[in-house]
Formats: sequence, C-alpha cells, structure tokens
Amino acid sequence: MDELELVDWLCERLAGAGPDVVQGPGDDCALLDMQGVTLAATTDALLEGVHFRAEDPAQDVGWKAVACGLSDLAGMGCAPRWGLCAVGLRRGGDGDWARGLAEGMAACARKHGLALVGGDVTAGDGPASVTVTALGRPLPGGPVRRSGAQPGEVVAVTGALGGSSAGRHLSFAPRLAESERLCASEAVTAMMDLSDGLALDLKRLTRASQVGARVEAGRVPVHPDAEALAAREGTDARMHALTDGEDFELLLTVRAQAWDALASRWSLSTPLVRIGRCTEADRGLVLVDETGQAGDWPGGGYVHALD
Amino acid sequence: MDELELVDWLCERLAGAGPDVVQGPGDDCALLDMQGVTLAATTDALLEGVHFRAEDPAQDVGWKAVACGLSDLAGMGCAPRWGLCAVGLRRGGDGDWARGLAEGMAACARKHGLALVGGDVTAGDGPASVTVTALGRPLPGGPVRRSGAQPGEVVAVTGALGGSSAGRHLSFAPRLAESERLCASEAVTAMMDLSDGLALDLKRLTRASQVGARVEAGRVPVHPDAEALAAREGTDARMHALTDGEDFELLLTVRAQAWDALASRWSLSTPLVRIGRCTEADRGLVLVDETGQAGDWPGGGYVHALD
Repeated sequence: MDELELVDWLCERLAGAGPDVVQGPGDDCALLDMQGVTLAATTDALLEGVHFRAEDPAQDVGWKAVACGLSDLAGMGCAPRWGLCAVGLRRGGDGDWARGLAEGMAACARKHGLALVGGDVTAGDGPASVTVTALGRPLPGGPVRRSGAQPGEVVAVTGALGGSSAGRHLSFAPRLAESERLCASEAVTAMMDLSDGLALDLKRLTRASQVGARVEAGRVPVHPDAEALAAREGTDARMHALTDGEDFELLLTVRAQAWDALASRWSLSTPLVRIGRCTEADRGLVLVDETGQAGDWPGGGYVHALD
Repeated sequence: MDELELVDWLCERLAGAGPDVVQGPGDDCALLDMQGVTLAATTDALLEGVHFRAEDPAQDVGWKAVACGLSDLAGMGCAPRWGLCAVGLRRGGDGDWARGLAEGMAACARKHGLALVGGDVTAGDGPASVTVTALGRPLPGGPVRRSGAQPGEVVAVTGALGGSSAGRHLSFAPRLAESERLCASEAVTAMMDLSDGLALDLKRLTRASQVGARVEAGRVPVHPDAEALAAREGTDARMHALTDGEDFELLLTVRAQAWDALASRWSLSTPLVRIGRCTEADRGLVLVDETGQAGDWPGGGYVHALD
C-alpha cells in the first residue's frame, strides 16, 4: 500500500458529509460553508528526513512549512487568512533550531498576509516535524477546483519544473499573486499546485475532471536546477521536470478561446506556459515528443511508499 | 528552555494580529471572525513515545487524536464542525496500523459531529505522529475564554482527575455535552480543558484572568485510576489528581451567586465539582489542606522539556 492508496482509503473512511462541506478530501483544500461564507482549509506535515534534512537551516524549514499551505491555497484560488502550526521537536535538540523555525514561519506568514493564530509544541524521540494548517477565503473568481476541466481546453503551468531538491523546495515563493491574476481572468476552469510532480499531479487533475490530456514534451518548461541535476547525474532533464516533486508551481486548464488573451496580457515575472490540451477521457494521458510521436505517460512522481 | 517558555516565545513571534483575529495564541482555541461569523480553530499533535506508545491499539490512538481537538473546542465553549488530519506513519510500518488509526479517528469524529474534510499522509523514518486541526462554532452562551474569571467566583472541574496514563488518556470522552450545558447556563466566566494537570492549567487560567485562587485539596476529585496508581507506586493519589496530565476534563469558574442553581440542576452523569474560589491576583495560588492549613501550590504538571 502506498500513500495514494492509503489516501484514497482514508478519504472513503473519513469523508465528512453534510450540506456545510462544499468540498471534502481530494482537492488542494477543503471548502466549508459558514452561514454562506466560504472557508478554505488545508493541512500539510513536513517530516525531517522526508521533506527536509536535519542540516537544513531551520528558518528555511519554517518558511517551507508555511509556504506549502499557502501553495495549496493558491492552487485552490484562495487567499490566505489564518494559520495554525504543530511543531514536534527533537528532544534534546537545539533551542536555536526551534527559534529559527519560528522565525522562518513568521517571515513567510507575514510576507503573505497569513496570521498565525495558534500552535502546539511538543518534543519527542524522533525526527522533528512541522504541521501547518492554513485557512483562507476564495479570491475573486475563485475557488477553482481540480474538477472543472473540459476537453479542448489548454493545459498550462506557471514557472519551470524539476530539480527543486537542489534547494528551491525550501525557499520557494507560493504562487499567490499568480493565482489571484488567474482567478480574476475567469478563464481558468481547473487548478492545483504541483507538489508531487507534473506526471502524477496532471493524472490527479484529469481524473478529477474526467478528461484526458495530450502534453507536448518540448513545451514543458525545464528549470535550470533540473538541467544541472541531469548533467550531474547523467539523467534526462525533461524527465526531472515531469516527475520531480515539490515544484510548488500552479497546474491549470484554461478555456481555449480565452488562452490567447490571458497569455498576451500576462505581465507577472513568473512565466505562464501552455504545455498541452485536454482531450476526451478515453484518450488518457499522452506525451508527445518533438517529432510529433505520441508516447506513454511517465510513471513516477513523488509517492511515499508506506511499506 | 521548556515547552512553556518556547510557547511563550513562539506566541510573541508568531501572533497574527488584525481585526479578524478575535483571540490569537494562548487559549484552547483561536477565535476568528469571518464576516461576522465566529470560527474556533485548534491544532494538536500526538507523537508516538510521548502521547501514545507504539503498542497502543491504533484505533485508540486515532480516537485520542480527534478527541484532543474536541476537548479544546469543549474547553472554549464551542461545538465541533470540521476536522483536518496530518498523519506521519513509520516507514515500513504496518498498513493495518494506518487503517486502525483511520477507523479510530472516524469513529470519534462521527460520534461527535465532526466532519473530517481533509488530510495529509506521509511516511518517515521516525515514530508515528498524528496532528488534528479541529474547527468549530461557539455554542449558545459561548465562546468562553480563560480570561474571564473574577475574584470571589467558584472554581470547579468536571469528572475526576489523575492517573489517566493507565489508559483513560486514550479513550476519554470529550466534554462537549458538559460544555454545552455550562455555556447555556451563562454562569460560566472562564473555562479550559485540563490537558497538562490541574496545578499547571489553573495557573494558566488564573494568569489569563489576572486572579488568584484558593483550592481545597480535599475537594479535588481523585479518579480511581489515580488511587490505583498511587497504591502501586507508593505515591500520593491527590498529588496525581493535581499534577497528572491528560485528564481532558473541564476547568471552569462560575459566578458565585449562580453556583448553587447550576450545581443543583446539574443532571449529566459527569460530576461537576466545586474545588475552590478565585481570589485577588496578589494572593496567588493556594492549596488548603483538610485542616484548613494553607500550603504552597504544587509545581509540576505535564511540561515537555525541550533540552
């Protein structure tokens, strides 16, 4: 059983129902109805040895813990409001580490308008962990779920992908401004943040939307970190862009007639890149190479094996 | 630096401000204003080796993870609505453990009207952990903070205290019905749940309220588990009731004129017990023994030493 199977299993078991649950498990955020006001909520845990290393600067770890929640809000078309954190420290660890962690969390939260309103601190025998719950409100034009894509629509991503393990995964800028602009366009039909690699996350988005997709490999923006990693390891940079985790960019679909206007008016420094098209569901996921040859969709992506 | 000092330090650093933060860090829940609708939010992490043992039944651990959040909501005079969980599994661990955990979480959530709407699952090299964020809404007469107690008011607790480590800490019933009844009385001026032991938690409540308190040792309800533990270890059962953690009962203050009516009409099976009185702040915390002799307030309580 791996993470994906367990999450599916948990979602079935846990899924809370009721008229005040607009969106339960299975998207970047849950959407909750509070007497007509929509609240978005997401929670993410970072574990030492999995999402950060013991030797990573504590400030960076704190930054990432908050930024992951902000990235989920951005992926849902929501703006940050409040955050809560649960910090599990190594017993006998360095007090300076805890302070650095708090400073990193506070810096990221302050910069992005998230008020940290609660927390829990414990010390245990294991590696450190930080869990952040982020709460937010839909942006104008939001929220945007994974499930709204239609055949014929444009598939796009922000930024460039792959190789974030070189360091970018700790210090990334959550794509809140980009999400705000995208939502305001009212041309975006589905969106999510890229946390487990394009190959896997596009599978999730197309499954939620019940569409297929045809992605042009040559259009997938490859990050210089992926190029460097590929050169160092003798691997393929484009495969890193397709399957490495923790890009924390946005993956989205856009109404076909609206794409040109959206792309031509895009003025943010983060690139917005068309990588393919949605197709009918029965076409599945197809990767087209530079010669026009259709190939299999890459497996992989960042999945936690549980046993 | 211990947990309390670090939490103080973190609260200073992290505290989000703004008109939509009604109550930030420092109470059982944060209180947030969503366009006039109040939301209560709390997060708690359970670590293997600290809050549960590897050999504890997974269902019980799942129950406890949710019940801790519900206990915080009860302590704040709020009713549960939604929950999110972040599960950190032992890599190579038993898949049945994860399923049992989910079943325990779902059982506790279902029983108490909490819809589990999101989650995050990872596997790491360390001990397992479960973090639950619980969201709720004030009960009629709620929310009730720690800070509302006045000199002369009655100090009371629900249930009986001490010795929960024998097993009760895993399977306790969060005091939601009791909280609802207490809030409805409109006689309760301050409340919190007892998670770190009466001695420490009453210190917190009185500090938040800027009062002192005089507690009659003979009135503190001692749980049979504390008696059994004391008999086994040759320790003092009353000291267990005062300082053991994880009672998950309610600690509250009640307007003096309202106490008799509240106590005489109390019809729930969980006892409601008067243990003392609030005093002026400069009197501090005083424990009065059966002969009327005033003694020092017990130290201790469940504090995580961080180094």
